[in-house]
Amino acid sequence: MSTIAATDRTQIHRIPARGSYDRDVVHAILDEALVCHVGFVHQGAPFVIPTICVRIGERLFVHGAAASRMLGTISDHALCVTVTLMDGIVLARSAFHHSMNYRSVVILGRGTDVTGREEKLAVLEALVEKIAPGRSRDVRGPNEKELRATRVISLAIDEASAKIREGGPVDDEEDMGLDVWAGHVPVALTARAPIRNGAENGRIPPVLARFSVPPEKTNS
Amino acid sequence: MSTIAATDRTQIHRIPARGSYDRDVVHAILDEALVCHVGFVHQGAPFVIPTICVRIGERLFVHGAAASRMLGTISDHALCVTVTLMDGIVLARSAFHHSMNYRSVVILGRGTDVTGREEKLAVLEALVEKIAPGRSRDVRGPNEKELRATRVISLAIDEASAKIREGGPVDDEEDMGLDVWAGHVPVALTARAPIRNGAENGRIPPVLARFSVPPEKTNS
Repeated sequence: MSTIAATDRTQIHRIPARGSYDRDVVHAILDEALVCHVGFVHQGAPFVIPTICVRIGERLFVHGAAASRMLGTISDHALCVTVTLMDGIVLARSAFHHSMNYRSVVILGRGTDVTGREEKLAVLEALVEKIAPGRSRDVRGPNEKELRATRVISLAIDEASAKIREGGPVDDEEDMGLDVWAGHVPVALTARAPIRNGAENGRIPPVLARFSVPPEKTNS
Repeated sequence: MSTIAATDRTQIHRIPARGSYDRDVVHAILDEALVCHVGFVHQGAPFVIPTICVRIGERLFVHGAAASRMLGTISDHALCVTVTLMDGIVLARSAFHHSMNYRSVVILGRGTDVTGREEKLAVLEALVEKIAPGRSRDVRGPNEKELRATRVISLAIDEASAKIREGGPVDDEEDMGLDVWAGHVPVALTARAPIRNGAENGRIPPVLARFSVPPEKTNS
């Protein structure tokens, strides 16, 4: 097990048993997440913007329009990227012990512009492959104009921690006899039937490896 | 339609047609979200922490342990709360035009401690009611010790904007003839079979109004 060294800033204080610094745990959460929340400071105030992310090795990458205000602000500045997967709703016997099941990762660091052409292409391919494995072979790849219009920022996964809550409620002993249903309701992001764009255009690719995708709707 | 005045900080620059300042739109996104991401600045660096949130009127509330480092840091300080609902994966004919469907809200402001006993109780009840309508009548309510151990922070929804992407890919005209499936795959957070905690303890409450919850598992 490879672990990430905890720092004053990533040490889990609230319920430390829920924290993890295991790289495999951190990576698995990052790889399952479609979206991350990027936090940065602009003119002294905090901003949090959602965007898709992809991990390659020990770095996390985000991308966007070259003219993006956010990307301009996080390049070579302090940032915090947080990923949260919702896993369940925890219904306890007291209001106080209601909770959520989740897996989250917080990464602290500095954004670095990815300027090399090959690395940039590799990140853009990884972004497509993340949501649709194999798809980068089938679609038209980025042209020079698109490459120039796209900015990629990377963040090292050096200062990071995961936090996980799972299972049912933890009720007080004196509440265990109350006549109320208690337990947890798992939740998960699931795919619905794909909706084709335009006319007949080939077979649905093996998208969304982790999803069970229902059959395509036939109304087009 | 009641609108929120855009400021320099909440003006949508990238694809402004996707922005909305309609209060009803902002409220609906906040009300559907189980979790928000709270951004704040601590010792000059940005931090982003996920937590459950609830809206009452024109304010958004978060809560946690009174000893929480985050809550101590956001009380009477600048913060940014962002909520993101994932709605779909957009598969275009070119790598460049791949996208996500989502609804997000960004709120900027200052955190205010909720210290009044009645308001605090109302927020804690609203949090339980959000995930399980009617449940606050059935469970044991907060006692004095629990109230003291819980801190509630509120944020006015004064400076805020929503951003929404929906529908299929927008491909370049010259790519429309490519032999590749294109369209979008809707995704949604869905509930799975509830898992009971401990012995027989009553009926499953009408939880999760917006979810279709499958029957309880009978293995306990």
